[in-house]
Amino acid sequence: MSDIAPISYDDGALRILDQTLLPHEMRFIETRDWRDVATAIRELSVRGAPLIGIAAAYGLALAARQGEFDEAMHDLAETRPTAVNLKWAIRKVEVATINASRSSRDVAAAAEEEARRLHEKQITADEAMGALGAQLLPENASVLTHCNTGTLATGGIGTALGVIKTAHRQGKIRNVYVDETRPLLQGARLTAWELSQEGIDYDIIVDSAAAGVIASRRVDAVLVGADRIAANGDTANKVGTYGLALAAKAHNVPFYVVAPMSTWDMDTSMGSAITLEERDPDEVLSFDIASAAPEDASAINPAFDVTPCALISGWVTDRGFLTPRKPETEVSIDQAVAR
Amino acid sequence: MSDIAPISYDDGALRILDQTLLPHEMRFIETRDWRDVATAIRELSVRGAPLIGIAAAYGLALAARQGEFDEAMHDLAETRPTAVNLKWAIRKVEVATINASRSSRDVAAAAEEEARRLHEKQITADEAMGALGAQLLPENASVLTHCNTGTLATGGIGTALGVIKTAHRQGKIRNVYVDETRPLLQGARLTAWELSQEGIDYDIIVDSAAAGVIASRRVDAVLVGADRIAANGDTANKVGTYGLALAAKAHNVPFYVVAPMSTWDMDTSMGSAITLEERDPDEVLSFDIASAAPEDASAINPAFDVTPCALISGWVTDRGFLTPRKPETEVSIDQAVAR
Repeated sequence: MSDIAPISYDDGALRILDQTLLPHEMRFIETRDWRDVATAIRELSVRGAPLIGIAAAYGLALAARQGEFDEAMHDLAETRPTAVNLKWAIRKVEVATINASRSSRDVAAAAEEEARRLHEKQITADEAMGALGAQLLPENASVLTHCNTGTLATGGIGTALGVIKTAHRQGKIRNVYVDETRPLLQGARLTAWELSQEGIDYDIIVDSAAAGVIASRRVDAVLVGADRIAANGDTANKVGTYGLALAAKAHNVPFYVVAPMSTWDMDTSMGSAITLEERDPDEVLSFDIASAAPEDASAINPAFDVTPCALISGWVTDRGFLTPRKPETEVSIDQAVAR
Repeated sequence: MSDIAPISYDDGALRILDQTLLPHEMRFIETRDWRDVATAIRELSVRGAPLIGIAAAYGLALAARQGEFDEAMHDLAETRPTAVNLKWAIRKVEVATINASRSSRDVAAAAEEEARRLHEKQITADEAMGALGAQLLPENASVLTHCNTGTLATGGIGTALGVIKTAHRQGKIRNVYVDETRPLLQGARLTAWELSQEGIDYDIIVDSAAAGVIASRRVDAVLVGADRIAANGDTANKVGTYGLALAAKAHNVPFYVVAPMSTWDMDTSMGSAITLEERDPDEVLSFDIASAAPEDASAINPAFDVTPCALISGWVTDRGFLTPRKPETEVSIDQAVAR
């Protein structure tokens, strides 16, 4: 784990790094109120599918102390619609509190304990995915990644970026192409910042340059995270992922999704059934203080897209490497050992 | 032609609309010195492959008056490496001046006359392409476009955007998805502005949302311009075009390139031989005054990419509609009549 902690909890006080201000400013949101957690998730002060789940779990720990557990459970679940870890983490904390109240234990303490457990489990899962994913990369690898899937997205070393960090520690990474990831620039702001801290060579590119980079330069693998994976393997992730997968396929570049098993939603049969969040058009129309478009301009702002399973070379999970079963509409849940 | 003139010439005085300030400010560069024209092209105050050619032609007309024709010819040709119209227009003016000097006519007047002729020819060509391209679209069409290919790119109604405007006048356009076109946001800034002026409904999207929009919404056609087309039909255009073509192909959406025949470079056999401009990484690392990335961040900034001819449904030109000949590596230069 890197030395920046995007979230930390101590005796009823939660500290969240406000990622919207990075890389220019490191400011923390310190709170004892679950409502601040909901706001932080909604406004992307805390983001990244796994970290959203962990933040919501800590939010519930605060809510239990505040005596507002049920209200918080409902509201926190509604903060972001796409990431499935959010609902999964909330359900985990709910079950822990139900068990505690059945055995007359302290409900707030149980919620707190479960939140901490989820956080620690993510750190362990990231290490496992990092080690597994690094095996998939050749020596002196040039890789391309999208959005931020590092410490700032999970609280551990990260998912796709965790693989890159692990491979770098093994001396296997030559350079990383970082999609800037409009509209909120998680690549240019956050991934670039994490790579700088790790001393890994990288170049930021505009998102639309990725296809040309894959066509004209050496890219050994594309590595992305996931917000929700349907039962058939269709993968919802940050908008732009689908286009990347098409470009990778066109040039026979392996396209790996790195995500914990908690990202799989077995209740959703395929990608078309996943709710994709649409965010405020203002995110598209401006950049921080600089507004780009005409004043009366209209925009649409899908935050995610779905990559069909047929375009995915494999999923690196905390339980092993999964590959699509042929015909390419079903996933083999048997753990395949990475080469 | 719209009421905004991106370039105008009157008796040795050239007036260029500074497009870098749009849509927030309309400021003109007024000059009698060809060096200001070279700077305006280099800094993208004037941009769009056809308009670059016209600006260079007027620049040569100024240079002829200044007695610096040869120097200007050399320097103007180097301002942008990818657009072939630039070299084509310069060559046209050169030939006109050579012919004039042979027949003892005024060289400066001949250069001026040729520049005006090229400008007027572009206006006519745009009308022809607009009429032809509009026939390719269904009623109530929803289309997607990239970068700016309108009046601000040609001085006429535009190429791809000229087709959209013509189809709109025929009542055939429902809405336009406008890629914002990072890094310089020609879509969000310029295309959105032109569409507003024409009263055409549009939505700006971030570039990486295009694949998801094509997958999940109705898009009847993708229309783009071109900076250079190789003899086999491989088409160099604003970075991001290639990814769009892959997404269009994956969903059987027609992908049309709209460009005058002066964009075809018969001396270049295929796309891999085209020089693709790389611009200042700072364009990627910041947005006007707002800087996004870490201070020491690294970036690469390809301005163009190449779309293989096999992904292109057809080329709308001022001389007719061209379609790829099977096998998909050669283009039929016979004019095919649009349906």
